[in-house]
Amino acid sequence: MRQSDLFTKTLKESPSDEQALNAQLLIRAGYIYKNMAGAYSFLPLGLRVINKVNQIIREEMDSIGGQELHMPSLQKPDLWQKTDRWSDNNVDVWFKSNLKAGGEVGFAWTHEEAITDLMKQYISSYKDLPFFPYQIQTKFRNEMRAKSGIMRTREFDMKDLYSFCATQEQHDSFYNSCAEAYMRVFSRVGIADKTYKTFASGGAFTQFSHEFQTLAEAGEDIVYINEEKGITINEEVLNDVDLQKEFGISKEDLTKKKSIEVGNIFSLGTKFSEALNLSFTDTESSKKPVIMGSYGIGPARLMGTVVDLLSDESGIVWPESIAPYRVHLIAIGEDNSQANSLYNKLKEQDVEVLYDDRDVRPGQKFADSDLIGIPTRVVISPKSIEAGGLEVKKRTEKDAKIVTEQELFDMLA
Amino acid sequence: MRQSDLFTKTLKESPSDEQALNAQLLIRAGYIYKNMAGAYSFLPLGLRVINKVNQIIREEMDSIGGQELHMPSLQKPDLWQKTDRWSDNNVDVWFKSNLKAGGEVGFAWTHEEAITDLMKQYISSYKDLPFFPYQIQTKFRNEMRAKSGIMRTREFDMKDLYSFCATQEQHDSFYNSCAEAYMRVFSRVGIADKTYKTFASGGAFTQFSHEFQTLAEAGEDIVYINEEKGITINEEVLNDVDLQKEFGISKEDLTKKKSIEVGNIFSLGTKFSEALNLSFTDTESSKKPVIMGSYGIGPARLMGTVVDLLSDESGIVWPESIAPYRVHLIAIGEDNSQANSLYNKLKEQDVEVLYDDRDVRPGQKFADSDLIGIPTRVVISPKSIEAGGLEVKKRTEKDAKIVTEQELFDMLA
Repeated sequence: MRQSDLFTKTLKESPSDEQALNAQLLIRAGYIYKNMAGAYSFLPLGLRVINKVNQIIREEMDSIGGQELHMPSLQKPDLWQKTDRWSDNNVDVWFKSNLKAGGEVGFAWTHEEAITDLMKQYISSYKDLPFFPYQIQTKFRNEMRAKSGIMRTREFDMKDLYSFCATQEQHDSFYNSCAEAYMRVFSRVGIADKTYKTFASGGAFTQFSHEFQTLAEAGEDIVYINEEKGITINEEVLNDVDLQKEFGISKEDLTKKKSIEVGNIFSLGTKFSEALNLSFTDTESSKKPVIMGSYGIGPARLMGTVVDLLSDESGIVWPESIAPYRVHLIAIGEDNSQANSLYNKLKEQDVEVLYDDRDVRPGQKFADSDLIGIPTRVVISPKSIEAGGLEVKKRTEKDAKIVTEQELFDMLA
Repeated sequence: MRQSDLFTKTLKESPSDEQALNAQLLIRAGYIYKNMAGAYSFLPLGLRVINKVNQIIREEMDSIGGQELHMPSLQKPDLWQKTDRWSDNNVDVWFKSNLKAGGEVGFAWTHEEAITDLMKQYISSYKDLPFFPYQIQTKFRNEMRAKSGIMRTREFDMKDLYSFCATQEQHDSFYNSCAEAYMRVFSRVGIADKTYKTFASGGAFTQFSHEFQTLAEAGEDIVYINEEKGITINEEVLNDVDLQKEFGISKEDLTKKKSIEVGNIFSLGTKFSEALNLSFTDTESSKKPVIMGSYGIGPARLMGTVVDLLSDESGIVWPESIAPYRVHLIAIGEDNSQANSLYNKLKEQDVEVLYDDRDVRPGQKFADSDLIGIPTRVVISPKSIEAGGLEVKKRTEKDAKIVTEQELFDMLA
């Protein structure tokens, strides 16, 4: 992509009401746009990042047997009344509206009820099970306060997977393989070393669920962590745990840290299948409610976490895996012909490249490149040509080096 | 994909309240699920089709300079008040809700206001123009009556592109190239021979806009068409046109036909840019409002139109371009080993294949295969093996033929 064609521009300042570092940087660099408190647009650069995050999540969900589908946001009250989750007294994040044809509709803030109802069409025998449908779909949540930039918004995409199992063994096995798949996702986007599987408040079925918490100063959550024993506990449940009995530690062995919840997994038991009458016939021909679980990751929250964790004073620092482009090619000087030629060669080799062909000062190009945060910067200038080729610098490194075109392609291969 | 793993099953019947052929077939074959009137889920097979339709649309929009972004559904009233499109008296399809933090929000039924406001951040000079941002994003419309299956729903994805130009010449040139890109989309999904660029009621700026209408008995619209002269006119505007003066024909030269609107393109002039104050500085340093256009295609409507037009009495008939899989491999008989081996070879060659490895009667497998409508059916049975290999049949043809494995791969290459 030629930067002169890209409709976004970098901005000197982010909106004055934007407190969070992730949103400040992403707005200034042209990744996102704030439409209102808690609702952002993903601009071309931002959409490329989100699509890569989504693709990583899809690959890992598919690898554990996930099947992608897409459910609507619009929800009828009757389903949610059966699980006691329609009333605003029980659920305080509904957006509801009147249907012109009569009655109310809600905008889904989660999809357990919808998927359970849908599955009644397809599950009748233990032979049908297990199933692991998932979607990457918008959730609407009527938050009193949108905060933390793209971390807690009123509208966001979520990858939500639901497991449908015949036996507790099937369920436990999937629950564990999903936890492992989640860690692979966090590893691939570059935050695994700061991310811990954490005991959190239970779902419908078990005393505890698991969250994945990434240690970060910008976090809204508090966790207590013992690195040595690999134990992390959300502050919310700290008093509910008998630390000595469960883990053989005391509170003094734990360190308090701020963190960001980047994923969660819940054992739901038969709460939803009983309420909505989703049953199957088991091997002994008796009817049983299906055992369920739910598993969430928010791609935009993941993106924001990466920005919060990896950025430096000059701007964003993307890992290769989710960078909008691999190479930021910068032409300096009057004559762009060599840069144009390299741009075309990179495209021919399917290297994703953003090409700064704009007629602006070199200083601005370098500052914008640091702000945008593409992993490899390649400069062609009269100086680099005189020195023997291209000046290459990793976004994570301080010093540039001169390489030939062939050496660049070898680096990228 | 092994069909035994797919969570959907074909159904004998579709819901009794479902009148439209497209939805009846898509529900029975396991492509979609009706959550409520006007809101459907796209199941794994259906999502594959929609993703292919979306990819074709993306490629054609990118080919004319489109840049993809993603805007939120949530909308603040103030923007839409400026264009007089917030009040329910002026717009009768809003879903609105109360924001917990105070005030109202709407769920976008279109995005002109949102994109115009966003562009104020990035447009200041004629040098910035033109720009052609687009998205594939959900629209919510509070329809009194959802009808025609997936053709007119209360929640649907739309590809909406907006053009921002400095001059009328820039606008006209893009308008025409977008019309051509639309015809390429319709051609690639297999409905171009029945689809006509049609005069329709004007947008904000011109007397007429253009719709793309596909002739179909299931259509909700009426067009008057003169095939010879290539003139098609929506019934809505027939009385507003001086046929003799504009086209040199009279009403008798036109044939009345039912049709489905599969796309539309509007010249918006400066209606939105003036109301929302989106201006640029022209070559003579004077400030001018940006000239806009909007361009819509509904991927699900396209999918429904293909089903309505191309299906036969046995089920759906997908064109290669948007079929969920290219090959439907069917194993008949006790021993699946040869079918398993062919399945693995097809996957190794990156041939998209649905493999019916289920333990059900051959008759059901054949009926399901016709209903699902994958372009090429490949049967391995004791009979086919005795006859020298595989029995191959195109969904569009009556007769099967026996081919060797090598011949099959040559066919698919």
